[in-house]
Parts: sequence; structure tokens; C-alpha cells
Amino acid sequence: MPAPVIAVVGGGQLARMMAPAAAELGVHLRVLVEDPTTSAAQVVVDAPVGAASDEEALRALVAPADGPHAQVLTFEHEHVPNALLADLSAHGTPVHPGPDALVHAQDKIVMRERLTALGVPCPRWATLPTDPSEAARRLDAFLAEVGGSAVVKTSRGGYDGKGVRVVTSSSEVADWFAGAAEGGPALLVEEKVAFGRELAVLVARRPSGEVRTWPVVESVQRDGVCAEVVAPAPDLTDEEAAEARAIAVQVAEALGVTGVLAVEMFEVSGAADGTGAPGRHVLVNELAMRPHNSGHWTIDGSVTSQFEQHLRAVLDLPLGDTSARAPWTVMANVLGSSLDDLADALPDVLGAFPDARVNLYGKSVRPGRKLGHVNVSGDDLDEVRRRALAAAAILRGETPS
Amino acid sequence: MPAPVIAVVGGGQLARMMAPAAAELGVHLRVLVEDPTTSAAQVVVDAPVGAASDEEALRALVAPADGPHAQVLTFEHEHVPNALLADLSAHGTPVHPGPDALVHAQDKIVMRERLTALGVPCPRWATLPTDPSEAARRLDAFLAEVGGSAVVKTSRGGYDGKGVRVVTSSSEVADWFAGAAEGGPALLVEEKVAFGRELAVLVARRPSGEVRTWPVVESVQRDGVCAEVVAPAPDLTDEEAAEARAIAVQVAEALGVTGVLAVEMFEVSGAADGTGAPGRHVLVNELAMRPHNSGHWTIDGSVTSQFEQHLRAVLDLPLGDTSARAPWTVMANVLGSSLDDLADALPDVLGAFPDARVNLYGKSVRPGRKLGHVNVSGDDLDEVRRRALAAAAILRGETPS
Repeated sequence: MPAPVIAVVGGGQLARMMAPAAAELGVHLRVLVEDPTTSAAQVVVDAPVGAASDEEALRALVAPADGPHAQVLTFEHEHVPNALLADLSAHGTPVHPGPDALVHAQDKIVMRERLTALGVPCPRWATLPTDPSEAARRLDAFLAEVGGSAVVKTSRGGYDGKGVRVVTSSSEVADWFAGAAEGGPALLVEEKVAFGRELAVLVARRPSGEVRTWPVVESVQRDGVCAEVVAPAPDLTDEEAAEARAIAVQVAEALGVTGVLAVEMFEVSGAADGTGAPGRHVLVNELAMRPHNSGHWTIDGSVTSQFEQHLRAVLDLPLGDTSARAPWTVMANVLGSSLDDLADALPDVLGAFPDARVNLYGKSVRPGRKLGHVNVSGDDLDEVRRRALAAAAILRGETPS
Repeated sequence: MPAPVIAVVGGGQLARMMAPAAAELGVHLRVLVEDPTTSAAQVVVDAPVGAASDEEALRALVAPADGPHAQVLTFEHEHVPNALLADLSAHGTPVHPGPDALVHAQDKIVMRERLTALGVPCPRWATLPTDPSEAARRLDAFLAEVGGSAVVKTSRGGYDGKGVRVVTSSSEVADWFAGAAEGGPALLVEEKVAFGRELAVLVARRPSGEVRTWPVVESVQRDGVCAEVVAPAPDLTDEEAAEARAIAVQVAEALGVTGVLAVEMFEVSGAADGTGAPGRHVLVNELAMRPHNSGHWTIDGSVTSQFEQHLRAVLDLPLGDTSARAPWTVMANVLGSSLDDLADALPDVLGAFPDARVNLYGKSVRPGRKLGHVNVSGDDLDEVRRRALAAAAILRGETPS
């Protein structure tokens, strides 16, 4: 009974959440984990330990000495040496998303250049020179151009608010200028968009070209990290939703993305987007080429979850229905907890919210760490949202009020 | 981060389908598997190999030398020595369902005696004596009483139509009489009920007493094996549904069942049930104290699946919402296949039915074997049923017409 074998780089919660989907589809998952107790290693039978940057580990992940070869190599994070992927790909291992696509999720300058060339709406942006004093001059000029406040980003290595700094003066990133001059990641600056809210569109594309998007969601960030997702985004017109989905499809197709792509967007009013067009519009903020926090609602709220869809897409299997199962689903992240162990809160959270779909990642508690999430679905958005947030609060160790 | 640990006896698809639920709840599953390649062993990290009848294996499952002790011992099948469970239970290991309850799912005579004493409606039935000629006389008399056709069953060891024989004469089970006389399982006979259809009620109960039932389903059997389940059962009045659910709750409570209990029922017209009462009624056919094929629809069709609910119940955690997520869900079993490997059909089945929820059990193909199932949900029962059956047919290797 040879099951399809998918090799996944990275042993965090995203790989963990692929495991249920793999079990249901009869797919063999092999996950390269950072250590044998990591989130995914707890629930994946075939979980060799190794670093994502280790060439031997990656080769053995795809073609182990004592197990079936993988049909495809994929990822739960983008921190993988691209040259190695290109080499594996050139030697016959399908890599999805491929290195030519993945680079746009690894390097924000490459991403901005490409999206701008495609005509995809982006915030105003500029690269900063390597020389610190030139970088400072360029940044101060940019700040003057965009109204005094901007976001400086490292081109590589950032996530969840790391590698991102909001500044009003070049002096606030002097340390980064020094880093870039010494061979650290290049820097770019983007206008600080006066956005109304953040939206996200999840799209899946498979090598043979089929593309499916899920309903557009609203993503609520706190301290630079996704705290809450509302699906679908409330008060979105059909035209806005169609525009956002069309941009995601355009990006997936133009960049040749395979697997799941998350496109994070700012929703801006016509006056702020610089086009002069009336109504609300979106600007692309970030890309992630893997299942993404903004899609955890799909586990319970959509016919096909982003995790199953990613597995289907990278195997070039037909994609699943992305319809919502309920009028509203709200996902609330559990970011840190005052409890030693989230399991201690299960009696309270399950007792208070029998309809809450609790998902715990098996991670030890650290401040602000993504430890789990809760999905609640229903007809009444206010009630759904209240329940999801209250359930997550119990898991964070807060006493229900 | 000590996760709750649940020890499960049996490595088939029912234990396999507990794995996704365990991963989501952050529960550590330890499954005693028959061999290292069995269905559950493919997806459960902690899967020691051993026989369900092996005392040492069961003790090590609960309290391994090199791992955390289990909070509770549970099952995916009833073929476990009850005395050993009683011993484990007496020495402080919670066993759910407990041996005093489980015996009613292990021994059909014990079950009939108890249900009859409780006043639960059952088909007419009788035990058959151990002496072959007395057994033949008793059976022929029973046949005359009930109109010429009856069902002889072995009290123990039967499943999926095995250990069940429909007879019109005692000569048709002479081999079983000889077996019983030689120490084989005792026999009982039940009237062959002229039922309209088969229903099933799934109920979960936890040690502290909370009970939840799912909507009543119709179970369509072919060759003595469940082929299809329609949730909810069509054309059932509220009174009938309430009656069926009340019987399931009565059985769960009276027998002290913990975990999931499946109560399979015959729906009979007032004329056929012997009570003379008008309308349709139900008679209890079989009990299973574990997740059950009649509940596979809940994985996609209900807010809380039977697998998650079983884990919650045996840990004495609050039970989840059992509401249906859609007006109709149909589950179609994949029983045998002409394909060597069901994965070969994934492109066809997923392509033809993007909304089909395909679940493959990782089992090698054998005639009639339960290899997987498909759930389809929607608003139009005829269409939902057509799609589920057609999807299952593709997985059986039949060319779509």
C-alpha cells in the first residue's frame, strides 16, 4: 500500500497541523524537525531531526536510506537555503513551492520589486543603500516624502513583527544600518500605510495550474502578531472581495507559486492609496508561501482546510472546495499563557464553550508564544467573536469574567 | 508540557481516526497495535506492538518503563479480556468504558438479558442450550413461534456480520451447536425483525455523568456490513428521534457506559413490534462501546466528531457540541477495491468531487475490507447521497459512469 510521501521542512505547529490532513488522505508525512520534542514531532511518526540549512539532512529527508523516497519537498517556513532547493529541484525532486517562487517570500526586496513590476498595488517603498550614511539620508528623504513615519524592514529573516521597525527618524535604525554594512540583511523602507484594517487572502495553486481561493478574511494584529481572524471579512463589498482575490490569484500565477500562498493586505480608503480612485482598495503587505495563521479558521470553518489543500496542491492533486461551512468563523490565537500547561484549562474552556474548536500545539509556555488557537463558527458574528476570544482567554489563564 | 495520555487498545482505523482529534486537543495517544504497519501505527508516534490479550502488553501500555503513565485505558474494539481490565481498574487505572459496562458489548446474551430487564425494546430472543439436540429443539420451537425465520448469533466474537446466521431450520447451524458443546461461544437466537430500515444513535457519556447524543442516523447495510450512513435519518418524526435518543441515553446511563456508545436499532411499524402500539418504533439490535462506523459522518458533519468526543469522555472532559454542521451528511464506506492502491484513485475522486471528504485508512486491499470512507454534506439529500456513493465507487476502482 504505497502511500504518497511528502517531505516537509520544519517541525512547528504548521507542520503539526498537516498531520491530521495527511492521515485522512492516506498521505505519508515526513517532517524535518529541529528537535525530537518539537510540536510536529509529537504527532508525526516519521520525523527525522535536523536543521533546515543542513544539506545532508534535506537530501536524507527526500531520499532516506531506509524509507520510501518523497514525491515532493515542501515547507512550513521559508528559512531554507534557496540554492540547495534549486539544486534538489534540478536533480529531479519536485520542490513546491519552487525556489524561484519561494524567494519572494524569503526576500522582501525581491518581493516588492516583482509585485511593483506586475502592477500589484503596494505601499510606497524604497531600498536603502548599504552605506550607513547614505542609508540614513535616503531614509530621511523617504520619511519626508511619505509624511514623517515609515516602516523599515530587513529584507530577510523577519517574521511575526521581528525584522520590522516603525520609525520617524533614521537614527532609530542606526544599528540596522551598521548590520547591513557588515553583511547583514539588506534593508527596505515602506510607507506606514494609514490603513483601515488588515485583510488576508489565502490561495492554493497546484503545478498543473488549478487555483482556488478561500473567502477574504480580516486579520486583527496585536503587537505585530496576528491575534484574531474573522472569516469572511465583515462589510466587504463583492467588488472588494473580488479585487482582493484577483490580486492573490495574479500573484500566485505570476510568481508560479505551488501550494498555499497567504497574501496579507492593507485595506485603505481611496484617498490614502494614492491612486485617486474612489472607494476602498487593498495594498499588498506580505506574502507567505505555506499554510498561514490567517488560514487556521479553515480547519473547522471551510470544507477543505488550508493544510489538506497544501498537501493536495504540492502533490498536484485536484484542489478541494474552499466554501465556508458557516456564515461566520472567528479564529482566536492563544499567545502566551499564565498557565504552566494549557491542558490544565481544558475542563474550563470545553465546559464553557462546547462549540469551541480548541487546537493546542504541544508547545511549552513562553510569553507571547503561539501556543494554540480556538475556532468558533455560527450565524451571529458578535456572539461568535465573543466566544472565540473568551475561550482563548481561558487558555491564556485568564479567569472568565 | 505534560499532555494528557490516553492508552488505546487496537491499531485499526478507529484508533487511527482518534489521532487527528488527539493532535488537535494536545492529547498524547498511545496505541497498542497488532503489528508495526497497521492502520493506526502509520499515524501514531507512540504505538507499541502487542496483543490485546497480553497482560504484560496492556500493563506496559498504561505504565511503560520509559514514558509517561496513561490517565486512562480505552479501546477501539471489544475483544479484550475483561478480567484483566477489571484487575487494572481495581489497581487504580481508570478503564473507560469499564469492564462492567464493556461486557454488554462483548457478550450478546448478557446484553439481551440486561436490556430486557431494563424494559428496553428488543427483538424477541432466546438463549440456546449447550447440548446440540436440545439446542436444535429450542431453535425449531423459536422458529415456529416467530414465523419461520430467525437469526442465530454467537454470544461472543462476532462483528460485521461474522458470528451471525439467518436460518429457517436448526440444521443450518448444526456446526455452531457442535462448537458450543465443545466450549465455543454460547448461542442465542433472535427473531428476524421485519424492519423498515436500520437506525443508529451515537451517545457519549463521561464518568461524571454528562451525556450527549448526536442526531439519529439511518444506516444502510449491505451483506451484513454498514455501507452507507445518512445523517440525520430522513423522514423521522421528532417523536421517533426523541424516543431513539432516549433509549440510547437510558442504555448509556443504566450500563454505566463511558466514552462513545453506538446503539444500532431496527425501525419497525407498530404492527410488527409486537406491542400493538401505533406508529413506528425502534428495537435495539446491537451495542458497540467505542467510536463506530455509524458515526464516521461526524468527522465532517458535526461540530464535534465521535473521535474527539470519545477522547474527551474518557478523560472526563466536558463534551462537545454534537450539532450537525449541514442539513445532510452522507457517509459512504469503501468496502474492498479493484485497485491495488486507493491512492491511485485520488486524482479521479478529488477531481470529480471537490467537496468530498475522503478518508483512507492505509490498509492493503482485500475483498470487502473497510479501506476508507467518504463524507459529503449539503442541502439536497439526493445530490449529497449521489455524490458520496459515486466518490466511494471511484475509490473501489469503478469507472465513473
